[in-house]
Amino acid sequence: MRRLDRLVEEEEAEEAGAVVPAPLEEEHLGFQPLVVIELSRHLQLVTRDWLLSRLRDNDLDGGAYLEAQPLRVGGGADSESRTLLVGATWKRLLIGAEEAGFVRRCQDGSMRAFTYLSRHTFEGYSDDNVAFLTMAEQQYIVKHALNNLRAKEEISMPGYSDIKLYPGKSVFRRLQSKRLLVQIYPLHDTEELKKLSALWYQQARPSYQPLEVIRRYFGEEIALYFGFLGFFTWALVPMGLVGLPYYLFAWEDFDKYVVFAGLNLAWATVVLEMWKRHSAELAFCWGTLLMRHDFEEPRPGFHGELGTNPVTGRREPTYPSWRRSLRVYAVSVPFVCACLYLSYLVMDVYFWMEAWVLAWRHSGDGDADEGGPLAVLALYVPSVIYAVVIEVMNRAYRYLAELLTEWENHRLESTHQNHLILKVLVFNFTNCFASLFYIAFYMQDMKLLRQSLAALLITSQILNQLVESILPYWLRKRRNQQMGWSSSEKAPSDHKDSPLRQQIRIEGEMDTYLGTFDDYLELFLQFGYVSLFSCAYPLAAVLAVLNNITEVRSDALKLCCVLKRPFSLPAANIGVWQLAFEVMGLMAVMTNCALIAMSEQVRTFFDQDGSVTLNYVLVIVAAEHALLALKFMLTFVIPDKPRWVRQKLARIDYESLQALKKQKIQVFKSLSSEQSTGDFLNSALGE
Amino acid sequence: MRRLDRLVEEEEAEEAGAVVPAPLEEEHLGFQPLVVIELSRHLQLVTRDWLLSRLRDNDLDGGAYLEAQPLRVGGGADSESRTLLVGATWKRLLIGAEEAGFVRRCQDGSMRAFTYLSRHTFEGYSDDNVAFLTMAEQQYIVKHALNNLRAKEEISMPGYSDIKLYPGKSVFRRLQSKRLLVQIYPLHDTEELKKLSALWYQQARPSYQPLEVIRRYFGEEIALYFGFLGFFTWALVPMGLVGLPYYLFAWEDFDKYVVFAGLNLAWATVVLEMWKRHSAELAFCWGTLLMRHDFEEPRPGFHGELGTNPVTGRREPTYPSWRRSLRVYAVSVPFVCACLYLSYLVMDVYFWMEAWVLAWRHSGDGDADEGGPLAVLALYVPSVIYAVVIEVMNRAYRYLAELLTEWENHRLESTHQNHLILKVLVFNFTNCFASLFYIAFYMQDMKLLRQSLAALLITSQILNQLVESILPYWLRKRRNQQMGWSSSEKAPSDHKDSPLRQQIRIEGEMDTYLGTFDDYLELFLQFGYVSLFSCAYPLAAVLAVLNNITEVRSDALKLCCVLKRPFSLPAANIGVWQLAFEVMGLMAVMTNCALIAMSEQVRTFFDQDGSVTLNYVLVIVAAEHALLALKFMLTFVIPDKPRWVRQKLARIDYESLQALKKQKIQVFKSLSSEQSTGDFLNSALGE
Repeated sequence: MRRLDRLVEEEEAEEAGAVVPAPLEEEHLGFQPLVVIELSRHLQLVTRDWLLSRLRDNDLDGGAYLEAQPLRVGGGADSESRTLLVGATWKRLLIGAEEAGFVRRCQDGSMRAFTYLSRHTFEGYSDDNVAFLTMAEQQYIVKHALNNLRAKEEISMPGYSDIKLYPGKSVFRRLQSKRLLVQIYPLHDTEELKKLSALWYQQARPSYQPLEVIRRYFGEEIALYFGFLGFFTWALVPMGLVGLPYYLFAWEDFDKYVVFAGLNLAWATVVLEMWKRHSAELAFCWGTLLMRHDFEEPRPGFHGELGTNPVTGRREPTYPSWRRSLRVYAVSVPFVCACLYLSYLVMDVYFWMEAWVLAWRHSGDGDADEGGPLAVLALYVPSVIYAVVIEVMNRAYRYLAELLTEWENHRLESTHQNHLILKVLVFNFTNCFASLFYIAFYMQDMKLLRQSLAALLITSQILNQLVESILPYWLRKRRNQQMGWSSSEKAPSDHKDSPLRQQIRIEGEMDTYLGTFDDYLELFLQFGYVSLFSCAYPLAAVLAVLNNITEVRSDALKLCCVLKRPFSLPAANIGVWQLAFEVMGLMAVMTNCALIAMSEQVRTFFDQDGSVTLNYVLVIVAAEHALLALKFMLTFVIPDKPRWVRQKLARIDYESLQALKKQKIQVFKSLSSEQSTGDFLNSALGE
Repeated sequence: MRRLDRLVEEEEAEEAGAVVPAPLEEEHLGFQPLVVIELSRHLQLVTRDWLLSRLRDNDLDGGAYLEAQPLRVGGGADSESRTLLVGATWKRLLIGAEEAGFVRRCQDGSMRAFTYLSRHTFEGYSDDNVAFLTMAEQQYIVKHALNNLRAKEEISMPGYSDIKLYPGKSVFRRLQSKRLLVQIYPLHDTEELKKLSALWYQQARPSYQPLEVIRRYFGEEIALYFGFLGFFTWALVPMGLVGLPYYLFAWEDFDKYVVFAGLNLAWATVVLEMWKRHSAELAFCWGTLLMRHDFEEPRPGFHGELGTNPVTGRREPTYPSWRRSLRVYAVSVPFVCACLYLSYLVMDVYFWMEAWVLAWRHSGDGDADEGGPLAVLALYVPSVIYAVVIEVMNRAYRYLAELLTEWENHRLESTHQNHLILKVLVFNFTNCFASLFYIAFYMQDMKLLRQSLAALLITSQILNQLVESILPYWLRKRRNQQMGWSSSEKAPSDHKDSPLRQQIRIEGEMDTYLGTFDDYLELFLQFGYVSLFSCAYPLAAVLAVLNNITEVRSDALKLCCVLKRPFSLPAANIGVWQLAFEVMGLMAVMTNCALIAMSEQVRTFFDQDGSVTLNYVLVIVAAEHALLALKFMLTFVIPDKPRWVRQKLARIDYESLQALKKQKIQVFKSLSSEQSTGDFLNSALGE
């Protein structure tokens, strides 16, 4: 919002005819800053200068070949500043695009890996068209270069004789692990941001998201998240429409139930498959589907005895896997179990409260089954309290899980993420849904299930919106007030600051976007509420749609105005979340089958007195297994990529094979001529 | 056996001091023949000569650059012969090895794609070491060259003005589709075959198979089949040992049942995962794991209107996919359903027979439950008849399924195979197991289940061994007798024939090995008998082990002596069969859970009067789902490749990335020097 205000101020200033300097150009700098490196205040100046020279050095001398300069604080005294501005020449960016493996559309319509030498064959390229690479891509290239700034030989870091650098060790990773680096972040592009927000959330259309513009500004990973959010919301609409009459007219017949559950099953499967196809299309057009993956380096936090990596042959920390396994199985697993037990205890308290409220109502109103509106509301109080407690526990557990996974000391970021996601998913799933499972299958109280489900879903959605946008907005506002107060006291020359310096000061203090994890997790739990017990509460889909329409806006606002700009990340799919959603879909089949099986109508359908017979059991179980098999087959039969993408991929494959063959034929030809002039064995031996 | 006899004769001749000429060298030929092309007897001689020249021509002239010669029949009159012998120079073979993408171990221990120019860096290579490529590999290279002999421009085939060849059309595929080609087959290597059979099946050790020698002689696909067969047999031993006491002491307690079913579940999962890892190891060592796949051409039988392939841009037949889908869904699916219905009718007849036999025994022996040994045997008669009928139906259906899949007109061999395998698997599974499912879950007659299972398993195993080895052996013997008679009549100069001509005459008339399909199918059905109802008949594993020990021998005998040598096929895994076996493992979990749930003991365990309660149902279903989930997790958690293979693969990946990076740095360096001398943009534009 702060940024928005600033934008509005600038717009007003422009309208008023005032000359506003270009926000990202500073006359003294000589280059466009893309990324800000904030070093520790206590960093030795000699280290800063060494770093600056490493950043500026040509690659031949082991440098990053970037443009870098300390930020001048106040009146030009830059000698003390620990904040570095980094940019790059156009040529450096193009070479970086090649190194990063960007895939772009060529003028002949095919997708190819960008190379500097063939740059003129790419669509939209000309030597003076800086828009060929978006600012997000330029920042990604700079970040890539910073990560790959490595020590050439074994030295101590200048100024710190105890910090050793081994050949191939990333300099910034070492700075980060020694806490000499505060943060590295990309700068916002105020012009682009203005356009983006105008398109995205400053208008009333609830349907449309400018995905291409989002991708250009925030990169593929975030664009895929918003694509998924939008896709999922649209997909929920038909389920909401179907569910509405069930809720309004309180349809509870057996056949209508079965129809609803069947629709739900087909819906979940088809939607997830369609998304896979859609995201493959997006990723193909964006070039990320064909992008070659980088070799994964050890994560910065990874520590251990110095050894030799068997793959790269480099010296790097090694940590025996049996010790990691010991930590995982002897500490983490029991810890997760303990947390699950705690969650169970809390659930117990909730059921005790529930019973207490029921008893209170009965005692207060005598034998009247329906009390006043207060009494009906009171029924919801335990559920709401429980929902709040669940949210608090989820967030606390998330924090602990991160600490614990960090302590497990995984070598790669990907395994670290997988262990973290697994921990969080297992706990959040149990924490959110255990009480519902208990109510549905042990207590078999459909009325309580509906009431509890509604309370949990609505409360968690309201809480999430609060925590995600209102709270950060309020925090930012308070901090800005404090800062405004302190800066006006300490730096009265503030108003003379260039827009760039202002921007850096503001953005540097914004919170960091922690990735799409929490956003996906929220959607995942929502999907659970909607699909697991959809038979019992068909209105859930409607609530989810309403929530998601505001969610798009609040997430967009968060990214554009509240948080620091995140580095863009090329992504070809939503990764492990596809699997998570598919597993949830599978569970939904089981729970809905069980719900239908337990309903009175079904039981009387099979046997007049409603008792359970073996015949009935076999039919239900067989039906459930058939549905599961059908789901697997659907997943298997529907191709993961649309026909045209598969054809394009086959074409690329074919072309590279043909190129290889041509090359071979060249060799063949040269050898044939060799053969015709002399003895083959001799020439081969003489080679 | 015929071949074996010949080998023995030769050995005896050698021992007797007679000089036996080298079997594969013929003084008049000038090269070692590898592959025999048998053309139609009615082929025009001008076409044969055109083909010969295309085979011999250098690649620059669009030829295959092979050595080829017609086989001289009788006293040297080769001008009429329609049988061509094909070989290749050592250099041609090495270039072919590069084209085929063979991956070999280098002297530094790493695995790399073989290239002619870097040939001296490979382990075991020297210019005079012909054993660097096995004969099977040489034959594969020749076959690859034959398949890739393509028309260069649009011509009519000489001698046949109505047979058009379009640019890029494979000559041999066209010959094949016009029925001018009888067969192409590789020659046996009598020396090697002698060594192989001595190692493989002419000794009493039941355990050991010389997998590496098999691979060198028959190629990776067949070696993997025998590897899997051996692995699977070994894996069955523990289950057999565990099952034996259950059978001997007739243990039928609930807890022992549960233990057995649990063991079975873990066993099936772990064995399949271990095989995946083991086959990855094998394929890595053999180089097939890293082998680049060839671009898949349309299969020879594919026909349709001439169009342009969107991927290759070549002119080739096209067939609209909606017409294929129509054929699949409107004809094939109903046909399969009709076959399934027929199978159901046969099952009905079987149950009618079963009831009739029971009634007969009761009427004959009065009220005595156990009659004489004849009566007990008579109990098995319907099952045995049914088993024979099942086998006959399976084989007839297999034939029809092939015709039908051919008629569906799939473009690629792989989709053709998939449709065929799916058809055959669905029918064979239903045909073999429907009666068992019916007995187990509808009739709930455990005694009949055991009896029927035993009869089906034993009968099918005996029948298979008969059809696979005894019958072909007998057929071959009869044919040889007939041939011996006719040849002695027609060609009295037969005894003066060179060994090569003898060999070609013998091998040319041997039956063709139709691939590993039937062998895997047999194993798959065996796996079903062993695992689906393992609770009811624990002896099945023991019977399977005994069968497989003889199966190895009979399959080996079949390949070495009864059938034509098959072309070797590089394979990295057992393909779709891994999935088929895993699905069968999943089904086994379900059926065994259901068997346990239905047992009297379990029912009384939950409720004293043995009736079905909701509680009981929930527990059983939950347990089954938990087991299934566990199975999925096990499959997911166990890595598909052993650690050392993953590390080697990562190393290869890393090295290729490093090589790419080095290349980029070269560009970077050259550009940097450019930069230092002049303006970047100008130089870039001037390029």
